[in-house]
Amino acid sequence: MNLLIRNANLNGKLVDISIEGNRFSTIAPNLEGSFDEEFDAKGMLAFPPFYNCHTHVPMVLLRGYADDLELFTWLNDHIWPAEENFTSDVTWGKVAIYAGTRLACLEMIKSGTVFFNDSYFIIDQTIRAVEEMGMRACIGTTWLNTGNADKCARLSATNDAVRMAYQNGEYSSRTLVAEAPHSIYTVPEKDLREIAERSAQNGMLIHLHLAETSKEVQDCKKEHYGLTPVEYIKECGLLNKRARLAHAVWLSPHDIELIKESGAVLIHNPTSNLKLCSGMFHFKEIDEAGIPFTLGTDGCASNNAHSMFSEMKFAALSGKTQAKNPTAAPAERVFRLATADGAQAFFPEGGEIAPGKLADLMLINPDQPYFVGDYNPISNLVYAGESSCVDSLLCDGKFLMKHRQVEGEAEIIEQARRVCDKFRR
Amino acid sequence: MNLLIRNANLNGKLVDISIEGNRFSTIAPNLEGSFDEEFDAKGMLAFPPFYNCHTHVPMVLLRGYADDLELFTWLNDHIWPAEENFTSDVTWGKVAIYAGTRLACLEMIKSGTVFFNDSYFIIDQTIRAVEEMGMRACIGTTWLNTGNADKCARLSATNDAVRMAYQNGEYSSRTLVAEAPHSIYTVPEKDLREIAERSAQNGMLIHLHLAETSKEVQDCKKEHYGLTPVEYIKECGLLNKRARLAHAVWLSPHDIELIKESGAVLIHNPTSNLKLCSGMFHFKEIDEAGIPFTLGTDGCASNNAHSMFSEMKFAALSGKTQAKNPTAAPAERVFRLATADGAQAFFPEGGEIAPGKLADLMLINPDQPYFVGDYNPISNLVYAGESSCVDSLLCDGKFLMKHRQVEGEAEIIEQARRVCDKFRR
Repeated sequence: MNLLIRNANLNGKLVDISIEGNRFSTIAPNLEGSFDEEFDAKGMLAFPPFYNCHTHVPMVLLRGYADDLELFTWLNDHIWPAEENFTSDVTWGKVAIYAGTRLACLEMIKSGTVFFNDSYFIIDQTIRAVEEMGMRACIGTTWLNTGNADKCARLSATNDAVRMAYQNGEYSSRTLVAEAPHSIYTVPEKDLREIAERSAQNGMLIHLHLAETSKEVQDCKKEHYGLTPVEYIKECGLLNKRARLAHAVWLSPHDIELIKESGAVLIHNPTSNLKLCSGMFHFKEIDEAGIPFTLGTDGCASNNAHSMFSEMKFAALSGKTQAKNPTAAPAERVFRLATADGAQAFFPEGGEIAPGKLADLMLINPDQPYFVGDYNPISNLVYAGESSCVDSLLCDGKFLMKHRQVEGEAEIIEQARRVCDKFRR
Repeated sequence: MNLLIRNANLNGKLVDISIEGNRFSTIAPNLEGSFDEEFDAKGMLAFPPFYNCHTHVPMVLLRGYADDLELFTWLNDHIWPAEENFTSDVTWGKVAIYAGTRLACLEMIKSGTVFFNDSYFIIDQTIRAVEEMGMRACIGTTWLNTGNADKCARLSATNDAVRMAYQNGEYSSRTLVAEAPHSIYTVPEKDLREIAERSAQNGMLIHLHLAETSKEVQDCKKEHYGLTPVEYIKECGLLNKRARLAHAVWLSPHDIELIKESGAVLIHNPTSNLKLCSGMFHFKEIDEAGIPFTLGTDGCASNNAHSMFSEMKFAALSGKTQAKNPTAAPAERVFRLATADGAQAFFPEGGEIAPGKLADLMLINPDQPYFVGDYNPISNLVYAGESSCVDSLLCDGKFLMKHRQVEGEAEIIEQARRVCDKFRR
């Protein structure tokens, strides 16, 4: 299968882009040859698409279910009881997670995102949905101690099955599976050490919430002989180049040194941090320390959207305000964070429109009122962009959206609504 | 002219909404009678539309022209020299302001906004464009001392002509004209006092930037015998119920008391404040003090968009983070700020869908992936909404947009692009 994208505007130059299989092949003006499919991108701007690096996608089903509450009221009185719905009835839980993931994929595709890094329950259904929808994903074998032996056994069984399927090559090359201990305050030390050993053996990435709130830091110091969360996970063997650490809002200078030495990657979630009042990520400081980081929306219950456009604007503006410096977190840097840097952390052969790279591509239609003045398209994407400017989206050499149309859209929304109706009752 | 909107979902109830002239008439299920036009709003949610209460709309022409800079570098090296383009050549300036305003109106209409409160130059052309586009606006007779006698004379002549036309009833009932001294640091005290007297006589609103940065407060205290900006404008006679004060980030407890006594209305601009690192508005404190306030995007050069969706999310999230309290700035409150409270400050007979009120209305199409779960439509609008969910928009009893189509859209974008091309050269 080969494909030709004609007349795309790539960095101000008009080119044709040929794709063979799942890779970019030749990029040059007026390509000749015969192709299985040609697509005219006249008037459109070509960019690498978005990588959303921290999500809990099935939580779309809880979008708007409970907002504007204190963290623990929100979790104890609303989110966790609602989630019981997923986990207490296995058959129903599977339907819900599948429907929720499809809806989230649709929302992400329509806003230019080809990848997400997820951690949630009943992950076999998340994988089923994402494989069908054609996106890339890194799906975490989520682990936390719920205090309920039955549930832990079910969680463990699903995780083991998924890990085995992954290692047996049963998933497409678009799906990664990671170790995903939820956090240091929900997973016992013994389990953290076990996960660290397993990851050292199987080479799987590690996806973990870390240093999200000041309470987490204080509690950690109390319980673990004065160690910060970063120092503690180092002790447990989890701080290494495979670690993908979500939030990392509260870091000491020593933490920053340790992270830098380890090669771990941080994941910044500006909207979630502001909505839950977790604090503000030190964008400028982390960037100047040379620590790699990426961008994520977090789950829908604490955002409440999967739009990387909105996320980029929040990253830029909170980065400036936190540093008290309007030159901090500039548009070009934030755009790279949301695209190439995300790819680098999960699919390092993606994130760039160049021969031999993974053929992920978004085509932007600049004929929007919010795209004029058109001096700087990247500034427009970061500060004024909305989903509606993404005309078409390719992942792994295949179209996920053409001219704003995604296959099965109405049915996906309807199925998710039916699940939400059941929740409401 | 009468109009019937059929089958709209208003606060969870299916109703027909009849409009006579520019007012809502009857709202009830299954209305009968004959109407000049019927519109089927089946499946759509009816809400009051947005009021954008602080703008400099022609600055769309400078969108993305210069970002991520220190305030004074940005103004001195980029924005002010660029604006010379508008003001140094009268003919060209008129074309530019007209084209820019039309583009901004288009952007606002497509994102559900029917009103803006503006302050800029060559305002006769702003008024011409807004009257044609069918929106409401409050246009300020902008005054600042540019240090250039010719320019000041031109500014003054335009202001006088507009003020006279307004007082002679030459504009539609959708257009208000306000006194708009730019700020206390660009307008001499003598002029501030003169404007205060004129507003007391002609009853016009006063639109003013105030207490935007801590530097402004420090400088004011130094120059004006220790008075804060709020105390100083009270001295000048500008602090009264006609005052509409943009930003108001830096207020002392005494300032808050004075504002409360005066009946003045504040205008909160969260995105601009974060982008320029001006500081964070004290949403919760101001609201609890019972001071009326509204929401605005500010000019496009410091945002860079006119979307009230994005603005609501920034208001909610910065309101929470500033108060260190996730229950602050809840969705319902922020939505009212962006709609009814904006109307209250400028067109108090608007802002509500009820018989006898001004017929301003937005129809939301909830068939969007980002609108499911659909437990709480207002939470979805504030935290996940985008322009694309606004299906249709009415202002003053007339459609400005039907099913996402606005008359003349392509031509408006093309004209604005031609102006930007001239800027670029």
